Amino acid sequence: MTAPLHEARPTGPGRALPDTQQGMRRRNLARVMHAVSAEGPLSRAAVASRIGLTRAAVSTLVDELIRTGLLEELGPERPGRVGRPGSALAVSGRGPSGIGAEIGVDHLAACAVDLRGEVRARAVRHGTNRGRSPEPVVEELTGLVRQVVAEAEREGLWPAGLAVAVPGLVARDARTVVRAPNLDWQDVDLGALLPGEFPLTVDNEANFGGLAELWLGADTPGDFLHVSAEIGIGAALVVDGSLLRGTRGFAGELGHVPVHPDGPECVCGGRGCLEQYAGEEAVLRAAGLEPGEDRVGLLAGRAADGDPEVRRALREAGTALGIALTGALNLLDPEGVVLGGALAGLAPWLLPSLETELARRTAGPARPVSVSRLGPEGPLLGAAHSVVRAVLDDPAAVAERA
Amino acid sequence: MTAPLHEARPTGPGRALPDTQQGMRRRNLARVMHAVSAEGPLSRAAVASRIGLTRAAVSTLVDELIRTGLLEELGPERPGRVGRPGSALAVSGRGPSGIGAEIGVDHLAACAVDLRGEVRARAVRHGTNRGRSPEPVVEELTGLVRQVVAEAEREGLWPAGLAVAVPGLVARDARTVVRAPNLDWQDVDLGALLPGEFPLTVDNEANFGGLAELWLGADTPGDFLHVSAEIGIGAALVVDGSLLRGTRGFAGELGHVPVHPDGPECVCGGRGCLEQYAGEEAVLRAAGLEPGEDRVGLLAGRAADGDPEVRRALREAGTALGIALTGALNLLDPEGVVLGGALAGLAPWLLPSLETELARRTAGPARPVSVSRLGPEGPLLGAAHSVVRAVLDDPAAVAERA
Repeated sequence: MTAPLHEARPTGPGRALPDTQQGMRRRNLARVMHAVSAEGPLSRAAVASRIGLTRAAVSTLVDELIRTGLLEELGPERPGRVGRPGSALAVSGRGPSGIGAEIGVDHLAACAVDLRGEVRARAVRHGTNRGRSPEPVVEELTGLVRQVVAEAEREGLWPAGLAVAVPGLVARDARTVVRAPNLDWQDVDLGALLPGEFPLTVDNEANFGGLAELWLGADTPGDFLHVSAEIGIGAALVVDGSLLRGTRGFAGELGHVPVHPDGPECVCGGRGCLEQYAGEEAVLRAAGLEPGEDRVGLLAGRAADGDPEVRRALREAGTALGIALTGALNLLDPEGVVLGGALAGLAPWLLPSLETELARRTAGPARPVSVSRLGPEGPLLGAAHSVVRAVLDDPAAVAERA
Repeated sequence: MTAPLHEARPTGPGRALPDTQQGMRRRNLARVMHAVSAEGPLSRAAVASRIGLTRAAVSTLVDELIRTGLLEELGPERPGRVGRPGSALAVSGRGPSGIGAEIGVDHLAACAVDLRGEVRARAVRHGTNRGRSPEPVVEELTGLVRQVVAEAEREGLWPAGLAVAVPGLVARDARTVVRAPNLDWQDVDLGALLPGEFPLTVDNEANFGGLAELWLGADTPGDFLHVSAEIGIGAALVVDGSLLRGTRGFAGELGHVPVHPDGPECVCGGRGCLEQYAGEEAVLRAAGLEPGEDRVGLLAGRAADGDPEVRRALREAGTALGIALTGALNLLDPEGVVLGGALAGLAPWLLPSLETELARRTAGPARPVSVSRLGPEGPLLGAAHSVVRAVLDDPAAVAERA
């Protein structure tokens, strides 16, 4: 196994980088971008009052952001107000864009999202990737990426970076897929296979799904556990608005939490893991069905038709999810749980038994379990938005590359 | 139940406080304190090179810290070197001190720790607090606190704050004990019962134990799970050098992770929780012993003497800990696990079965399980050191109050 690279981490104020005027300017540029992104269009005066800097200081920062194409002026505000009319500022719909891509077990996808968060190009290819070797899969994905980049460029956008969601564990170097059992991949350096012209980030699909929920979900709290499933079951732990990644980058392996310690053997080497009760294939098996390509569609369709075997299998999966989540809630005390990915489509049949189990086992007021509205789109959107967020978080870095 | 107060949390750079010269000065004062604390005695030039500021900037900061009594000069370094001899700087052994206190099920304790991390005064009272009402317990604890404060004051120290460790869940207001089942306390506002002259922080003993391990342990990683037990079993999750507290402040309830979901009923309302297999009373029960005051001493003594019933009970507790920790490691991916509190004293008989279980159930390289050398002292020391760390982290705030 490739030794995972650890990100440098701050270890107390004494070790952090010194505060400099230059660093202050960079952070204040980010504050302006975030204020306009979250609440714009805004006048310079409104930005100044939002972020607590003087109007003069904000004007200098805004001029720089307009010059580098990250903000744009919408023209003078309507007259009739007191004083000189200010020009409203908005995040640019041209300039840098985030390219997201996804390697799913049964599909490949890519999209381009502008700084305003709008999807401006999209490409998908269906068909299983299970058991295929990485090279042809990545070659096809690269074709989709080039397609959305070309489409975005025609609209005046340029790619600020590429983020790829994968169904497996990713090392903290953010490019190596350490283990993707459902693709049968191990130690694959995607950085060596993907085109080198964009800054690259590779992450687990559950992580990007959780981030999408944080950034795009309606009323999502800042602390939550996002649980998603494709073939495996993964979780993303969002704490104070950030992902908890773990030392090696492997946090969130809810699928391998023991539910019945003497239960059936699992691919991980353990026994009775959640995945053995609530993974898509386990549920299909329990319902007496053959796993095909549209597993969730099959289960949801049969459950909606009232198939008692499928309903029972989903009820039992919900119970197992409830047991594993009881442990996770006791350990992490999040504000809530969000069911995403394939679980979102099966929620009507999973939720009742899941919630009964949580209510039986956890003290205090119930924590809300909600269903993601992004569903299977989450990881792809999360990937593209992670690039956009990086631009908002440090606009100076992008301006240097523009 | 009292509604827990949530700490204000940053939600992206746009919402943070603006960077100001004043804030920069405060952060640089902290950098100087941390550098001298971690590596002192140091000359001004050595501090400047450690933290990446100019010597002139560091001299101004150092003068301020000497004036307010947080740093002291040890006199000129030995001659014979090139240039003007510099005076070595050290953290002051007088000035502010951290007062720690602990409400245990079977004891009360208090201590004073100086900025150098040395314990300068200590007081303990043995005897059960189970079932006693909060007022007389806190009155006794206040007596111990006043005793160590008086002793510290005779040595030129003054109390910068009081931190109290309790065996229960504490709200995020850091003063209300929401639930301490082994004291039989509920919704006790310690802030109203303790003397009002010191800034107060109340926290769970497992949290203070974990912090003590982080700050005082030998080679403790920055990411670890600290597992401790008194009557209950608690964990502290240290991530990137900080405690993960949870939304309500209740994270780390490892004792209520389900181990055998159909197992015996637990006080929490659940079934088959870890506490039912590895809590002190469960182990005593399994070994056919009566719970008395020195439960750990009794178990450790019998196990050392080779008592087969006690050894079996501890072996089974280790297995249950291994199952619950498998779930925790899969969710959190820490660098390692540290056994503290009462578990440290029982480690020789718990560890073999615990490690066997982890090895059976978790893929990849084994994560090290180590034993705390602080043992039952951890929470009290962690409490006192939390006050000291707060002084190092923002020396300007303390200087204003000196």
